[in-house]
Amino acid sequence: MKVMFFFAIFSLFLVASHTKEVASQDTKACIECHEMVSPGIVSDFKASKHYKSGLVGCAECHSGKDRPDSFSHNGFRIHTVVSPTDCAKCHVSEVIQYKNNIMSHAYGNLTHNDLFKTFMKAVNYFEGRPLTEEDSCLSCHGTKLEVRGTKKRDTVLGVMEFVALEGWPNTGVGRINPDGSKGSCSACHARHSFSLRVARSPETCSRCHKGPDVPAYKIYSVSKHGILYGSQKEKWNLESKPWIIGKDYNAPTCATCHIAEVSVNGEIIAKRTHTMSDRLSHRLFGIPYATAYPKSPETYKVKNKEGLPILSELTGEPVAEYLIDKEEQARRTKTMKSICSVCHTTSFVERHFLRVDEAIVTTNDIIRESTKLLTLSWNKGGANIKDGIFNELIERLWIEQWLFYGNSIRLASAMGGTDYGVFDGGRWSLSSTLEKMKEWLRILFFLTNSQKTAN
Amino acid sequence: MKVMFFFAIFSLFLVASHTKEVASQDTKACIECHEMVSPGIVSDFKASKHYKSGLVGCAECHSGKDRPDSFSHNGFRIHTVVSPTDCAKCHVSEVIQYKNNIMSHAYGNLTHNDLFKTFMKAVNYFEGRPLTEEDSCLSCHGTKLEVRGTKKRDTVLGVMEFVALEGWPNTGVGRINPDGSKGSCSACHARHSFSLRVARSPETCSRCHKGPDVPAYKIYSVSKHGILYGSQKEKWNLESKPWIIGKDYNAPTCATCHIAEVSVNGEIIAKRTHTMSDRLSHRLFGIPYATAYPKSPETYKVKNKEGLPILSELTGEPVAEYLIDKEEQARRTKTMKSICSVCHTTSFVERHFLRVDEAIVTTNDIIRESTKLLTLSWNKGGANIKDGIFNELIERLWIEQWLFYGNSIRLASAMGGTDYGVFDGGRWSLSSTLEKMKEWLRILFFLTNSQKTAN
Amino acid sequence: MKVMFFFAIFSLFLVASHTKEVASQDTKACIECHEMVSPGIVSDFKASKHYKSGLVGCAECHSGKDRPDSFSHNGFRIHTVVSPTDCAKCHVSEVIQYKNNIMSHAYGNLTHNDLFKTFMKAVNYFEGRPLTEEDSCLSCHGTKLEVRGTKKRDTVLGVMEFVALEGWPNTGVGRINPDGSKGSCSACHARHSFSLRVARSPETCSRCHKGPDVPAYKIYSVSKHGILYGSQKEKWNLESKPWIIGKDYNAPTCATCHIAEVSVNGEIIAKRTHTMSDRLSHRLFGIPYATAYPKSPETYKVKNKEGLPILSELTGEPVAEYLIDKEEQARRTKTMKSICSVCHTTSFVERHFLRVDEAIVTTNDIIRESTKLLTLSWNKGGANIKDGIFNELIERLWIEQWLFYGNSIRLASAMGGTDYGVFDGGRWSLSSTLEKMKEWLRILFFLTNSQKTAN
Repeated sequence: MKVMFFFAIFSLFLVASHTKEVASQDTKACIECHEMVSPGIVSDFKASKHYKSGLVGCAECHSGKDRPDSFSHNGFRIHTVVSPTDCAKCHVSEVIQYKNNIMSHAYGNLTHNDLFKTFMKAVNYFEGRPLTEEDSCLSCHGTKLEVRGTKKRDTVLGVMEFVALEGWPNTGVGRINPDGSKGSCSACHARHSFSLRVARSPETCSRCHKGPDVPAYKIYSVSKHGILYGSQKEKWNLESKPWIIGKDYNAPTCATCHIAEVSVNGEIIAKRTHTMSDRLSHRLFGIPYATAYPKSPETYKVKNKEGLPILSELTGEPVAEYLIDKEEQARRTKTMKSICSVCHTTSFVERHFLRVDEAIVTTNDIIRESTKLLTLSWNKGGANIKDGIFNELIERLWIEQWLFYGNSIRLASAMGGTDYGVFDGGRWSLSSTLEKMKEWLRILFFLTNSQKTAN
Repeated sequence: MKVMFFFAIFSLFLVASHTKEVASQDTKACIECHEMVSPGIVSDFKASKHYKSGLVGCAECHSGKDRPDSFSHNGFRIHTVVSPTDCAKCHVSEVIQYKNNIMSHAYGNLTHNDLFKTFMKAVNYFEGRPLTEEDSCLSCHGTKLEVRGTKKRDTVLGVMEFVALEGWPNTGVGRINPDGSKGSCSACHARHSFSLRVARSPETCSRCHKGPDVPAYKIYSVSKHGILYGSQKEKWNLESKPWIIGKDYNAPTCATCHIAEVSVNGEIIAKRTHTMSDRLSHRLFGIPYATAYPKSPETYKVKNKEGLPILSELTGEPVAEYLIDKEEQARRTKTMKSICSVCHTTSFVERHFLRVDEAIVTTNDIIRESTKLLTLSWNKGGANIKDGIFNELIERLWIEQWLFYGNSIRLASAMGGTDYGVFDGGRWSLSSTLEKMKEWLRILFFLTNSQKTAN
Repeated sequence: MKVMFFFAIFSLFLVASHTKEVASQDTKACIECHEMVSPGIVSDFKASKHYKSGLVGCAECHSGKDRPDSFSHNGFRIHTVVSPTDCAKCHVSEVIQYKNNIMSHAYGNLTHNDLFKTFMKAVNYFEGRPLTEEDSCLSCHGTKLEVRGTKKRDTVLGVMEFVALEGWPNTGVGRINPDGSKGSCSACHARHSFSLRVARSPETCSRCHKGPDVPAYKIYSVSKHGILYGSQKEKWNLESKPWIIGKDYNAPTCATCHIAEVSVNGEIIAKRTHTMSDRLSHRLFGIPYATAYPKSPETYKVKNKEGLPILSELTGEPVAEYLIDKEEQARRTKTMKSICSVCHTTSFVERHFLRVDEAIVTTNDIIRESTKLLTLSWNKGGANIKDGIFNELIERLWIEQWLFYGNSIRLASAMGGTDYGVFDGGRWSLSSTLEKMKEWLRILFFLTNSQKTAN
């Protein structure tokens, strides 16, 4: 009798604790079905703080006010795409901050910039092929999700109708959501576990920052910071809140310097921010020159003297009106230096930043030399500017000068990843490609002159 | 007195448990010596399930029916090379499945294919140098192990005689073993611990799938799957059996999608297989075009209309008779999609696969353009086809189009590793190299014509 | 009453244990301040064996006999830069060994070698820019730290004066310290935790050995050794002393083969050494040819017949007088082989080393062919030797032959990282670049002749 009574109480307790864990009856219904049809999503979600809080569930994020992509699904009105608008229900400051982050404008900054649209075509060879663009540039920049009617599908529960979404799936940082909001929190807070550990791990950033255009992850990996992460991370606490360097972990990940709250003995020296430019004085991966950071995250609106949508003239002169001023640069640098100072002395930090300045100057100088060669080529018939500036070989060599090597050298300097500034897409590549441009131009001119002579 | 009795019992227990752990008296003898001369092998073995089962030991795998490489060793008749025939004593279904895996034919598919033999020479610069070939292509494809008499060696136990093996050591996937069997289980089930954890870790695949020809590991690493692995694997159980996604781990490794049993709520949706093509509709790393998957794993037997041992014409048209049909392709795609569906919705999965199809079409198209340029070059005296098709610069540019960039783009599309489809050996490289071929051809033609004029 | 007494005793115990942990009153003073201004350094230090021993603290390393960079700081006479001289107070044999390690001479071997100085300029494009050099070659090779007066800085404790150091910060392996000593132990024993785990992790070596010039880390990563590390390291004990393979870990890291003590059943077969050449028979990353290992670590003193500071003639013939003899080579190879033998049979090891020898021969041969083309180019007016041998395109192609591809192939052979010997900067690149040199030379000669004809 006693035993039965115990079991009854115990069962009640189980039910109670279970009910407590599920945010709502709607969410409970979601889970019941989806545990059968997509158990990986549900198990991932059940590992999340959202689930464990008992406050956030499927229905809390995947339903709400009607929007273009809402549809009826088993008696519920839901949307597939969770947008920053959904996250803002709880994380309002993060969403507001992220709106000012250049990343949230990555779609428009690419597709509304005439120069970059031409570049996309040069990269992909084809244009006007959405599936190619989604799979290429827009994979990181974000797609534009648009409702294209509905589609019926045969499911385990019979035929069901779903909204058909152009551009889906995508977790690009500047995704245009059906509700008009920009960005995908899931880009860094992956899938349904929303793990702090994942967001704080440099691997997360590697998805879009590993290639030769922005080799930040590779550079981090061989920096002292990355080495300490790689060799010790099993011993670190990457999930604590607050997340205190020296206590929970002993070398920064990407998140530490660019996003996380950094405090010293309880005093906050850098506020947590999802506007990463708050700590960035320069736009290092320069297009084509490194400049001060742009004032507005909507860089496609920039116009230089020639009317080109880039932050500098082709001579390298920055287009000052669109850029933050020296005072603002100093403020941001001060924040970043204060983060360095948690583990490094002032003399260490000061000269480190001098070297970064030097890398900006020298890479800009060599790129300026390269631009002169390209201009010469255009002017003297070596290459054709009229058919676009990104297709011919000498134009492509020029592109690699800034898109690959200049960027790599500056980032390697800023993050202490030596080799990427020297032999692995670094200074060796920059000086070699300049020489290659020179010699190639000699041949182009020879061919052009021979043709003229022949005519 | 009591204490002594306890120790006696305890010692007996130790002996008993020890005896239980060693598979046989022969194995015990092996261990006794080898613990002295190669303790690393023994300690690795002692960490294995084989050892712990008390059923499998050194003698169980390294001896048995006499074969060409058997030799007498301290009173035992043993063979150095453990082949699939040995493993089949217990793992018969895996060995049968692996026989149909294209990997097990990697040696013959390379060395019995006249085109690829020429290519090997083009890569290595030299030909007929076994040590170079073993260290180069055959390191992954597998060597042919052949007995070349015996060799006496001075050991700690005095002079002993061993079988001398040409091609040894090697753990290539298509190794030809002295007993005639094909493959090396040790390629993935490394060394003597035969660890499931190791076999299921993507690092294992990186040995042969990291280079520009098959950058699968690099692509995986920056995919969401790889990021979740990289940032969380310490928390995963990579040794459980069954190995259930959502319970033991929460994002696929290479093994999940290509080999492992995948089940949903206890229902198996993809059977475990060592014939990895069971889930592959296409041959993505195309030679030179991506096609449907070949019917037979022995691809060296293929002949296209021109008599070349490749799965398509030089125009890209697939050689249908050697390829699986659309129905079989659909069956395999369905299996793969069902694996995706454990964690992804149907709309997610469907468009993902549309993008892969698009990547196949567009890369094949650009490679076709490249082939046209090469053919033009051959026909008009820009390059010489008679001295082989893999040596001159324009031929090598053509090779990189499909061997590196086409492959990278398609695999990046299939596995969600964006950047390897864009700037890191992706679309940028493919379109740039096409342009380079065009401009180089212009120069070759100019030189050829100048020479003609001069003569 | 009893409780209060207990707390009193407990507090005393805490104080006692704390006092025991801090090496000296001076160190205690350092910590008290620096816990406020650079807590990351202190927390890192508190995680160290140094701190826990109660014997080594801040003052023990950062102060002592006066040297050029000593300065007064809050009543203490300290120096910022801890040099091997400081470490030698306790680790005398390591410091003596390291003096004979070629790494400790990395600064002079680069900057006192006229050829390499020209090369530095070719890489950086600029010369005489210290900040660029510190950020580039000298980041790994080490800078020359020189006192440049003092500098006042505003600190939380008011204005303070510090020694100003040219070349600081730097942890290059051959750093010239203000006290004249060479090297930075912190290059591998990173920061203030001096963790054995970090020093033994291959990530540590990746800082300077990942680029195309010395891709050792990348090669290790895809070798069986690296795969076992990558997939299992969470289970390894990387901090034990002694560190026994088979017990604490089951595949070598870089440290195992090149530095650590290796023992078999208690018998030491390779003594721990910080002169890494003790186990190296060849200089594999050849300049431009692989040779026997140099006798002296000061390679800038070498002179070949032509008076060039390199270990071979331009024909590849080694400059024997500067190289260890066959006997010494055999001794070193024997040590390395004995390490292999812990886990591999003799037949395995023997042919592995034959393949390395073959890789040396074949890469040297192809580089010799490349040098012939370059010499031809110089002699016949294709390229200009007078303006340096590292600037023109054909010279740079030649450099990549040995600096990148030859090195990669040999290291891939030695460490079992196949792909880096084949398609990823390996044999494919070596044979392709040879062809590129040939065809480029044809164009150069054509242009030169056309110009002559025109004149």
